[in-house]
Amino acid sequence: MMIGTPSTPKVTPELQRKREAFYAELPEFNMRPLWAILKDAMTPEPTTQAVPYLWKWKDVRPRMYKAAELVSAEEAERRVLMLLNPGMEKPGATSTLFAGVQMILPHEIARTHHHTPNAIRFVIEGSRAYTTVNGERSLMEKGDFLTTPIWAWHDHGNDADVPMLWLDGLDMPFVQSVDAMFFEYYPELTQPLRREVDDSIRRYGSNLLPAFERPIGEGLYSPVLNYRWKDARASLEAAKGDQGSPYDGVIFEYTNPYTGGPSLPTMSSCLQLVRKGEHTKAHRHVSSAVYHVAEGRGYSIIRGERFDWEESDTFVVPAWSWHEHASAGDDAVLYSFNDRPILKPFGLEREQAHPKGRQE
Amino acid sequence: MMIGTPSTPKVTPELQRKREAFYAELPEFNMRPLWAILKDAMTPEPTTQAVPYLWKWKDVRPRMYKAAELVSAEEAERRVLMLLNPGMEKPGATSTLFAGVQMILPHEIARTHHHTPNAIRFVIEGSRAYTTVNGERSLMEKGDFLTTPIWAWHDHGNDADVPMLWLDGLDMPFVQSVDAMFFEYYPELTQPLRREVDDSIRRYGSNLLPAFERPIGEGLYSPVLNYRWKDARASLEAAKGDQGSPYDGVIFEYTNPYTGGPSLPTMSSCLQLVRKGEHTKAHRHVSSAVYHVAEGRGYSIIRGERFDWEESDTFVVPAWSWHEHASAGDDAVLYSFNDRPILKPFGLEREQAHPKGRQE
Amino acid sequence: MMIGTPSTPKVTPELQRKREAFYAELPEFNMRPLWAILKDAMTPEPTTQAVPYLWKWKDVRPRMYKAAELVSAEEAERRVLMLLNPGMEKPGATSTLFAGVQMILPHEIARTHHHTPNAIRFVIEGSRAYTTVNGERSLMEKGDFLTTPIWAWHDHGNDADVPMLWLDGLDMPFVQSVDAMFFEYYPELTQPLRREVDDSIRRYGSNLLPAFERPIGEGLYSPVLNYRWKDARASLEAAKGDQGSPYDGVIFEYTNPYTGGPSLPTMSSCLQLVRKGEHTKAHRHVSSAVYHVAEGRGYSIIRGERFDWEESDTFVVPAWSWHEHASAGDDAVLYSFNDRPILKPFGLEREQAHPKGRQE
Amino acid sequence: MMIGTPSTPKVTPELQRKREAFYAELPEFNMRPLWAILKDAMTPEPTTQAVPYLWKWKDVRPRMYKAAELVSAEEAERRVLMLLNPGMEKPGATSTLFAGVQMILPHEIARTHHHTPNAIRFVIEGSRAYTTVNGERSLMEKGDFLTTPIWAWHDHGNDADVPMLWLDGLDMPFVQSVDAMFFEYYPELTQPLRREVDDSIRRYGSNLLPAFERPIGEGLYSPVLNYRWKDARASLEAAKGDQGSPYDGVIFEYTNPYTGGPSLPTMSSCLQLVRKGEHTKAHRHVSSAVYHVAEGRGYSIIRGERFDWEESDTFVVPAWSWHEHASAGDDAVLYSFNDRPILKPFGLEREQAHPKGRQE
Repeated sequence: MMIGTPSTPKVTPELQRKREAFYAELPEFNMRPLWAILKDAMTPEPTTQAVPYLWKWKDVRPRMYKAAELVSAEEAERRVLMLLNPGMEKPGATSTLFAGVQMILPHEIARTHHHTPNAIRFVIEGSRAYTTVNGERSLMEKGDFLTTPIWAWHDHGNDADVPMLWLDGLDMPFVQSVDAMFFEYYPELTQPLRREVDDSIRRYGSNLLPAFERPIGEGLYSPVLNYRWKDARASLEAAKGDQGSPYDGVIFEYTNPYTGGPSLPTMSSCLQLVRKGEHTKAHRHVSSAVYHVAEGRGYSIIRGERFDWEESDTFVVPAWSWHEHASAGDDAVLYSFNDRPILKPFGLEREQAHPKGRQE
Repeated sequence: MMIGTPSTPKVTPELQRKREAFYAELPEFNMRPLWAILKDAMTPEPTTQAVPYLWKWKDVRPRMYKAAELVSAEEAERRVLMLLNPGMEKPGATSTLFAGVQMILPHEIARTHHHTPNAIRFVIEGSRAYTTVNGERSLMEKGDFLTTPIWAWHDHGNDADVPMLWLDGLDMPFVQSVDAMFFEYYPELTQPLRREVDDSIRRYGSNLLPAFERPIGEGLYSPVLNYRWKDARASLEAAKGDQGSPYDGVIFEYTNPYTGGPSLPTMSSCLQLVRKGEHTKAHRHVSSAVYHVAEGRGYSIIRGERFDWEESDTFVVPAWSWHEHASAGDDAVLYSFNDRPILKPFGLEREQAHPKGRQE
Repeated sequence: MMIGTPSTPKVTPELQRKREAFYAELPEFNMRPLWAILKDAMTPEPTTQAVPYLWKWKDVRPRMYKAAELVSAEEAERRVLMLLNPGMEKPGATSTLFAGVQMILPHEIARTHHHTPNAIRFVIEGSRAYTTVNGERSLMEKGDFLTTPIWAWHDHGNDADVPMLWLDGLDMPFVQSVDAMFFEYYPELTQPLRREVDDSIRRYGSNLLPAFERPIGEGLYSPVLNYRWKDARASLEAAKGDQGSPYDGVIFEYTNPYTGGPSLPTMSSCLQLVRKGEHTKAHRHVSSAVYHVAEGRGYSIIRGERFDWEESDTFVVPAWSWHEHASAGDDAVLYSFNDRPILKPFGLEREQAHPKGRQE
Repeated sequence: MMIGTPSTPKVTPELQRKREAFYAELPEFNMRPLWAILKDAMTPEPTTQAVPYLWKWKDVRPRMYKAAELVSAEEAERRVLMLLNPGMEKPGATSTLFAGVQMILPHEIARTHHHTPNAIRFVIEGSRAYTTVNGERSLMEKGDFLTTPIWAWHDHGNDADVPMLWLDGLDMPFVQSVDAMFFEYYPELTQPLRREVDDSIRRYGSNLLPAFERPIGEGLYSPVLNYRWKDARASLEAAKGDQGSPYDGVIFEYTNPYTGGPSLPTMSSCLQLVRKGEHTKAHRHVSSAVYHVAEGRGYSIIRGERFDWEESDTFVVPAWSWHEHASAGDDAVLYSFNDRPILKPFGLEREQAHPKGRQE
C-alpha cells in the first residue's frame, strides 16, 4: 500500500494541481486543512482585537444627558450608552467584558428582567436612586458598588429628585461566546419587595452569616447587594501604610462572604489606592480589565501609550497589555472589574513583570 | 489441619481453663481479645461522660473576684477559673471543648505566649481592656467576640480602670487527644505592636479583602480579631422577622471572610436570638456546645432537665443530648461555641429531631 | 433643570431628526445606544451558530489518506483535517470546541511544541504509533483516549508499519475567545524521553498516587497520559446492568485521579454504552459536545433531525439542542468530549428534559 | 473598690490559708484554677502516652491460632486480638488509631454490622476468604488492602479451605474521643449481595467514574473496596528509580478516586518501598502511624531505639517521634496507616527534619 511519504515531496506543478483539487473538494464535506491556518489559530502570544482606550467623562456625561432628552427609559428598556472598544467588531470593552453608562431620571423605572450575564454597577453621580435585586432594594450613593448576579430579577428606579448615572459592567461577551445566554422579562413592571431596604448589608455586612438557611444561590455569588463607598474607602485607608503590590499598590477585592472569592462568579471587582506620588511598576496579564476613576487624578501607561485620567473617566486594559498607574496630585482611587475568575479555574491566567520595571 | 471450629464450642471446664490460661498470657505480648471489650468500645450511641450543667454567674463572679485578691496575673500566667464538667475526669466542659472565665485587673498584663489550641473570648464585664494577637491590639467591650487562632502570639492587658472578665473557650481537649499540643513563651513579656488598634476590623470588616497579600495563616482562620457586639447584634435584629431554624431560631455564625466557614478551624461560634415568647423544638446532634447568655433570661431543657438562665450564665449541651431553648420575658441572646468543624470533615456529625417535637 | 422625561415622548419628525443627529455623533466617541441592539444581545435562549452535523468516516478517511499523499507532516506541522461546523464562521465544531482528524504515517514525526489549548486524542485506526507528552511516551491502540494538557510539550511519531489516525479535540475556540492563546516550539524536533513508556499508567492506574511529589501541574489536569480502551470498555461492561441515566444510559467520565474531576480542566471526556435495544430520552443542555462512534451502529436525533452513525463517524450536538441516542443492532459505544467544565464554575450549565420524553 | 493587685503578693501564711480555703470551695461549683494545671495541660511539645513498639508475627500468629481453637467467631462476633500500645491506658495502638489481627476460619461467618469508625484491612495470610461491604463482596489475597468506610454494612466469611488472617486498623480511639460512636447490627446474619464480586475494582479501577450516579457516600470515602496487592506493588515498582522522599523513599498513598485524597476520611493508607541498601533520613511529625511489613526485612529506628522487622510484623510510630527506616537484604515493602487526615484540616500537622540527618 502506498500511503504517502513522511518526507516533504517536491512541489511539482502536478502536485500543486492535485493539491488544489483536493482543497477545493474539502468544503463539500465541511473539512479543511489545519495547516493552512495553524499560524493564525495558534499564536505565540494572545492577539486580542481590543485596544487600550479611555472615555472622558466630560464627553460621556453630556451625551448621556442628551439621550435622556431624546429617549425614555420605557422605550429603551435600559438607558445605557455602551462604551465600545474601537478595535473590536463585537460590542464590548474587552473580549470578555461589556461596559456602559446607565442613567435613570427622577420618577423613571427600568422594568424588571433577569439574564444569565452577571452585572456590576458603580455609581458615578446622583443620590438615592434605587436598584431592586431579588426582592431587596438598595438606595445608591456615589461610589457604591452593587452586584446583580446571574439570573437575579432586577429593576431600577429613582424616587429622588436628581438623575443617577452609573457604570454598568457585564460578562456578556463571555456568556455569548459559550452559548449560555438566557433572558426573561418579569411578568410585572416591578417585582415585589420581599426584604427590607439594605437588608443584605445588615445581614452580611459584619462577618456573620445566617446559619439557619442555605447560602443564597448555593454560594455562587455574593449575597451582598451594595458594597458602600464609605466602607470600601475606609478599608483602603486602613492599609494605606502597607507596601502593597508593586503593580497595583494597595488594592482590595470586593468579596463573596460565602467563599472569600470574587463577588460575582465571572468578574472580580477591585478598589485600589494610587497614593500621592506613587507610580507603580509595569506588568501584564492575560486577564483584561475595565477601570473607572472613583477619586482623584493620574495617568496610566498602557502598551506604551499614556492615558491621563480624572474623576469618572473610564478606561480599558486589554489582555496581555503592559500597564502601570501613577497618581497626579493627591491620592487617587481606581475601581476596576476584570475577567480573572474566568481564566483562573483553567490555569489560563499568566502574569509577567516588565523586564525594565516600567515601560519606555 | 485442625484449626478450630466456626461453631461455638461447648464451654467445658477444661475449655474454660484453657481460655483463662490463654488470656493470662496475652498481656506479655501486649495483646488482648477484642471480644472481651467490644460492647464497651462500640456502643449503639455516643456515651459521653459529659453531662448537662449550668454555671450561675452569681456563683462564678464573686469567686473570680476572690481569685483576683489572692493570686496575681503574674503568678498565674492567666487568671482563669476553669468551668469543669462534673461528669468528666479530664478538665473540660465537653469531651472536646474547654471553658473558663478569665479576669484581668487594671494595670495587669497576661504575658505573651502561643499554643496550638485555638481560643475564643466572649466579653462578660468591663470596658477597654485589650488583647493583642499577632501584633494587633483590640480594645474590648461587653459582648465582643474575639478569636485567638492556632499558634498566634497573644497577650492581654488592661489600661482601663475597671477589671475585665471574659469567657474563654478552647479546643484543648481535642488537641490533646490527637497529640498535637505545642506551647511556647514569647521571649519578652509583651510582643511589639505591628498594626494599628482594630486594624483587622477596618480591613476585613466590609466584605473586601486585600488582594496584595496572601491570606493570613493561608486562610485557615479568620483574620478578624474582634467581632463587635453592636454589629453582631444588629445582624440578628435584621433577621428577626425570619422564621429561622426550628431548633435554633434566628442564629448566625461568626465567619472567616477568607472562606465563609467558621472563624476558627476547630470551633464554630454562633450568636442566636431566642425571641420573646419563642420556645424552640428539641433536637440532638453529635457536636457539643458551650452556651453563654449574652442578653436576657430564659431556660433550656437538656436531656429532660430544665436549666434556667440569665445574663452571663454559662451552660453546656453535651454530645447527642436532646435540647431546646425558650426565652422568659423579652428577647434573649445566646452566644455559643461548638465542635462541629471537628466532626464535619469526617462525616461524623449527625442531627436528629425529637420525635415528639419537644421533651416533656 | 430640565433633564428629559421618564414617559415616552411622542416621536415627532423633529425628535426623530434630533435622535438621528445624536446617534450619528456617538461613534466618534466609541459609544452606542444599547437599546438599539439589546434584543440581539440578550436573547431568551442561547442562539448558537453551530448546527448539528455528522461526518461519515467513509468520507473522512479517504480524504485523510489523500492528504497523506499530497502533504508531508514536515510541511504541515500536524497533518490534521479540521471538522468544521457548517453553521459557524470561525473554525470549530462547536462554539467552544475544535475537532479534527490527524494522521501520522510510518516513520513520520510531528515536531514538538506546546500551547495553552488542551487537547484530547481518541485513536481511530492503527497500532503502536506514539505520542510523547512531557517526556513520557505512549504507544497507542484503537480506542485509547489520550490527554495533552495545557502547555505540555508534545510530539507524535510512528515507528510501526501502518498509519495511525485519531480524532483530535481542542478547546481552541474557547481559549481564543478569552485571549489566552500561547504557543511555542520546542528547540529540537523531539523532546528527550524522561520517563518509561506508559509510566503514567503504571503509576496512576490503580488508585494510588505518589506521596513523595507534588501533583503534576498542581493537579489542574490528569497525570494519566493514556486511558486504555480495554480498561475503559471494561468499566462500561461492569455497569451494563445498571439503569444508568435516562438521557445517556451507562456513561463514565474519564477522570483526573488528583481530583476526581474531568481529565482536562476545560473538557470532560466520556465513554457511554448505548445498549442493544436502548433508545434514551431526549434532553438538552447548555454544554456542547463532539461525539465519536467507538463501536457499533445506531442513530441520534438532534434538534429533530436523525443522524445515523456507524463506527468511526463523528457528530456534534451544539449547545441547547434536544438530543437522544439509540443503538441499532448490538451494543454501541460512544466517546464524547464536551465543554461542561467551562460552564460549571460559573453556574452557566442548565439541563432540561424534553417535555414529551422524546422528540418526534 | 479594692479588687486585688496585678503584682504578685507576698505569700504570707495568712494568704496561704486564704488560698487553700478558696481552692477548697471551688469544686462545689465545678470550678478549678487553671494555673494549677496549666503546665500539664499546655506542654511545649506533644506528650503522648503511646510508645514505639513492635509485635513480632512469630508471637502473634500462634496466639491467633490458639484463639481460633478456643473461641468461635460466633461467640466473639469478630475474632480479633488487639495490638495494645504498652504505654497507653485506653485500648489502641496510638492515641487515635486502633490495630488488631483478625482471623476467620474456613466456613466461618463474622456477622453483619456497621459503625461510625472506619476500618482498613491488610491481608497477612490466606487466600479467597471474603469481605462484603455495602452489598459488594471481594475475595481477598495476601497483600490486598481493603476499606470499610464509616457506617458501611460489612461482614466477613471464608468459603476457602484455609484460614485467613489480616491486620485490622480503625480510627476508634479518635471517634470515641469526639463522642461520635454509633454501632448497629444488621437484622440478618449476612447482608444480601447487590453487586457482582469485585464490582468496584472493575468500575473504579481505571480512572473513570460513573457519570450517571452521585458519588457513593457523597465522595467522603473511596468507592474502591479492594486495592489489589499486585497493582499497588506495581505502582511502587514503576517509581523505583525515582529519588522519592528523603524520609520515606518511594511512597504511594491509596487514594479516593472521587477526590484524590485518602481512601478513608480519617486515615491515610500508604505503601512504600524501602529499597535494597536504602536507609532513610530521620524526621518526626504529629501524625502517628501503624506499620505492617508487607515484604522483606529491615529495621526502623524510632525515638533512638532500633526495631528489627521482617514480613508480617507490625509496629507503631507514635506522634512526634523521630523515626527512620532501613532495609536489610533485598527490597522491603511497608504498608502503613496514619491519622494525618484528622490533623490536616485544622493545621495541626507539623513535620520536622532531624537536625543531624539521622538518629545515632
